[in-house]
This record gives sequence, structure tokens and C-alpha cells, in this order.
Amino acid sequence: MSLLVVGTVAFDAIETPFGKTDKIVGGAASYIALAASYFTQNMHLVSVIGDDFPQDFLNTLSSQGVNLDGLQIKKGEKSFFWSGKYHNDLNTRDTLDTQLNVLADFKPVVPAAAQECEFLMLGNLVPAVQMSVINQMSKRPKLIVLDTMNFWMDVAMDDLKKTIAMIDVLTINDSEARQLSGEYSLVKAAQKILAMGPKALVIKKGEHGALLFNKDEVFFAPALPLEEVFDPTGAGDSFAGGFIGYLASTRDISFDNMKRAIIYGSAMASFTVERFGTERLIGLKKSNVSERVREFIELVQFDIELN
Amino acid sequence: MSLLVVGTVAFDAIETPFGKTDKIVGGAASYIALAASYFTQNMHLVSVIGDDFPQDFLNTLSSQGVNLDGLQIKKGEKSFFWSGKYHNDLNTRDTLDTQLNVLADFKPVVPAAAQECEFLMLGNLVPAVQMSVINQMSKRPKLIVLDTMNFWMDVAMDDLKKTIAMIDVLTINDSEARQLSGEYSLVKAAQKILAMGPKALVIKKGEHGALLFNKDEVFFAPALPLEEVFDPTGAGDSFAGGFIGYLASTRDISFDNMKRAIIYGSAMASFTVERFGTERLIGLKKSNVSERVREFIELVQFDIELN
Repeated sequence: MSLLVVGTVAFDAIETPFGKTDKIVGGAASYIALAASYFTQNMHLVSVIGDDFPQDFLNTLSSQGVNLDGLQIKKGEKSFFWSGKYHNDLNTRDTLDTQLNVLADFKPVVPAAAQECEFLMLGNLVPAVQMSVINQMSKRPKLIVLDTMNFWMDVAMDDLKKTIAMIDVLTINDSEARQLSGEYSLVKAAQKILAMGPKALVIKKGEHGALLFNKDEVFFAPALPLEEVFDPTGAGDSFAGGFIGYLASTRDISFDNMKRAIIYGSAMASFTVERFGTERLIGLKKSNVSERVREFIELVQFDIELN
Repeated sequence: MSLLVVGTVAFDAIETPFGKTDKIVGGAASYIALAASYFTQNMHLVSVIGDDFPQDFLNTLSSQGVNLDGLQIKKGEKSFFWSGKYHNDLNTRDTLDTQLNVLADFKPVVPAAAQECEFLMLGNLVPAVQMSVINQMSKRPKLIVLDTMNFWMDVAMDDLKKTIAMIDVLTINDSEARQLSGEYSLVKAAQKILAMGPKALVIKKGEHGALLFNKDEVFFAPALPLEEVFDPTGAGDSFAGGFIGYLASTRDISFDNMKRAIIYGSAMASFTVERFGTERLIGLKKSNVSERVREFIELVQFDIELN
């Protein structure tokens, strides 16, 4: 049930219709690790930061059970920084600034203890970098989940396809699924993408929920309708963290268990969007998570008897 | 279990990325009545057409059990005509042409037998016209469902609010719920709209499913992911027809039964979008409907045991 999380640990500056932040902690791996930590405490993180990063947040990760031996801290360099502004509908955003800094020449090094992990979550990164992590594992993990984005489809499609061929579960959003497959229908898109290698595909639709496909089955989970959606940043990564964290904790990678993992992932995402950045993912209780999952059950439960 | 359906019976000319039609049969009440006819055969239709309308379609309605005594046929006049073109994403469309024709001075007259109906479905029309139907009922129906659109919020908001105050269930889409309430959050929007009078609110989200709210509960049903979505025209009306048809056939207006009605409504909508116009709604078998509902159950079913 050991889990290796690879991805960015970074600074974000975010503007939503409800307010704006200065530089706060963000990055895919921050959200993934925090969300997963509510399910498994046997977790390694591989990432890179500058020496400008707050020790407080690293302490938080450690206290949530995340092993930081694979976190490179580059002396005299700055952490990755992203700044963005959400439109009024919160579904679209503009990137205002991207400073790669330490990420420009990031070469992940997986510590020996982490090379044995049974579960591997590859957050959004250059596809070649994601592949280099897979190649460092001492044995093929039981499950490899990969998240990516449209940018890599534009500039590194060949590398991306090679990497996708090596994994088990791909998580992308609906427009990315359409771009990757060239199909408008998500049902057709899913079949084309599954033919590229993965055994399962998760299509994230933000406030409209998520779809899980394998070759023969499909499952849909809604997003929880919330009174306040404050900041969507990190929702997809929190989803991925809850998803793989639950799978790692149960060690069951059947389609039925992936359905449950989707619900737990959706629950973690529903917390994240209630505050700026990672704030809401810190200090949750297990009972908060169960309560949120109960709301999902009530939201979709119906009872029809067919003859 | 008697049902009165009021709304347009009309011609549409539709262009989608997959093809275009000349004038074909459309109109809210056509879709509603056809969809509802798979659940109840005790149905009256109140609408208006010109003498240019195909008798074939009227015969189809009759054979599906729809009483046409309330259908006004205006000699020498033309039926309502709408023409539209869908964008590539099928979620948005431009109206190319609207010819009100007989609809311009439509005054619905509810026949005596239909005034007693226990269930009343008011398809999208001028709010004052919808209200005039309610006022013609000899006794207050057990359930009144009303569909409307953003256009009436722009030009007849006062009349619309007066009409909404008289009904039980309002069906609108997500952007209309936001416009009507002035709230972005659909949870907050729902509470404001329910305070206007209706006991329940259905928010239709097209390919993203539908939400059902009452004051204390919320239910979500996805749309079925389909290989081919051909023409979204009439999906919302088919949904409404399945919804009220199921409620009328069971005579149970509890929240739990409304959940089932939402699933049956979604099933009917999933047929409609597979072909142009009303084509797919004609000649279905009950077993086709059950099979589609079974797909919904499989799509959302998961099993989590919480302690």
C-alpha cells in the first residue's frame, strides 16, 4: 500500500471573482499528497523546490505522513510560480504568469525506498520527465495513474503517447479527451484513448463531475453541488490524490473499487474548492471525509424496480 | 392519472454538425406528449397549428393515446416555425429564424374534459398564456409543472414570477436558474427560486445531467454518455414529458418518486438526441425504455460502506 507521488510543489497567485491571493502554496503534488494522506500514510514525494519555500508547509506534509527524502531543494534558486485569474463562471481561467525556475531542468530522482512503491501517481509534468520516473521503479508498480494537460498534447504529443502506453489510468478533462482522441463523443474518445494503452480512463468535468471508463464499463460521479465554490485551483489534483490514496489503502484495483475511489476523489475535491489553495485540505478529520461521502450517496441514490 | 399538456406543436429546421433538415415536426408539446405517452395514455393536448400541418403526425399522437380535442387548427394560417443552427459543441445554438404565425395570438381553450386533469404540464410559452391555462382548470391539479426560458425573464419577468408562484415544479436550465435568482451557486439559486413558490425545482444541464431540489433535499441524475448525439433539439421537452408522464402514471408526487421520474425523463431525452426531431420518440417499446433506465442504474451505482 506504499504510494509514490511525483509532481510540482510550487507557488500560486490566484484571482477569483471572490478575492485574490499573493503567493500561496500550490502545485499538483501538494494537493495530491495532502488529499491522499487521508487514506494512506505510507507515501513518498518526489519533487523540486527552491530555498524560498516555507518550512511550515513541508512540516505539514511530514506530519501527514509524507516522506520528503525525494524532495530536491535547490540552493539559491526559486520555486516554480504560476499566476492565474478565473473568469466569472469559474470554469475557465487565464494564465497571467508562469515562471518555471527550478522546474526548468528538473530531473526527478526516486530514492531507493520509493522505487519499490506499489502505487505511482504522476502529476502533470513534462511527459519525458514522467516517463523517467516510471523507468526508475525497481519493479513495475501495481497501478500507475497519470495526469496531464492540453499543453503537452500541443508540444510533446509523441512523448505523451509513449508515456500513456506505459500506465494504467489516465486522468484528463473533457476537452483534453477530445483533443487527444480527435473524437467529440466522450464515449468514442474513451475507446480510442483506452486503445493507446491505459486500462482505465477518468474524464474530469469539473463542476459537472467525472466519468470512469474501462473497455466494457462506464461510471459517472457528479461533483457535489456546493453553496460556495471559492477557488477551483487544485480540484483535479485533489481528486487524483483521493482517488489513488483510496486505491493504495485498499490495494484493490478492480473497476468496482475504482468507482469508490472516484467518489472519495470527488469528496476531496469538494473540500479544496471551498477555500483558496491547500487551506481546506489541511486538518480535516476522517469523519469530515465520511460525512462528505455520505452526501454523495444521498445525492445520487434512487430506487427503481424494473421488471 | 389524467395529464394535460400545453405547448407548441410546430415546424423546425435544424442544422447540427452532423447534418441539416428541412421543415420537420417539432415544438415543445410534441416532444412532451410523445415522451409522456410511454407512461400514460390518458392525455389531453392543448395547442395551436395552421392548416399546413401534416395529418400523419396528428395520427401518430392519437395512436399514442393523446386526445386532440384541445388542438386548434387555424384555417388559412401557418404553424409556428423555428430554425436554428448548433455550434460544434452541441451545447450552444443560434436561432436563424422565428416565425410566430398562429402562435402570435394563441389563446388556449381547455376543453371541459381536460379541465379536470390531475397533472398539468405547461411547456415553454408566454407566461400570461401559461397562467390562463391554470385559471381554466376546474379544480387545482395535483401537480403543475412549468417549463420556461431566459427570453421570458428578459421581456416578461413580472408575469413569469406570478405564474411561477402558482405551480409546483419549475424546470429550467442552469444559466436560466442563475438569471432568475441572481445567484451563481446553483445551491443558492435553488433556494431563492423555491422561495418564489414552487415546491421543487429541476435544473437541466443538458449533457451534464439534471439536478432536482426541494427545500431540504437535492438529487442529481447524469445524462447517459452516448456514442452519437445527433440533434439536441427537444431533449429538455422529452425530459419533461418523461418526468410528468411517470409521475402521472404513478400518482405519487413524493421527492423519492420525483427522483425516479427524473431518471425516466433522462431516459426519454437520451432517445430524442439520437435522431433529428421527434423521430426516435416514435415507435419505442416499453422494453427499450426499461433497458435505457437499466443503463442509468449501472452508470451511477456504487457501493460504499461507511462506519
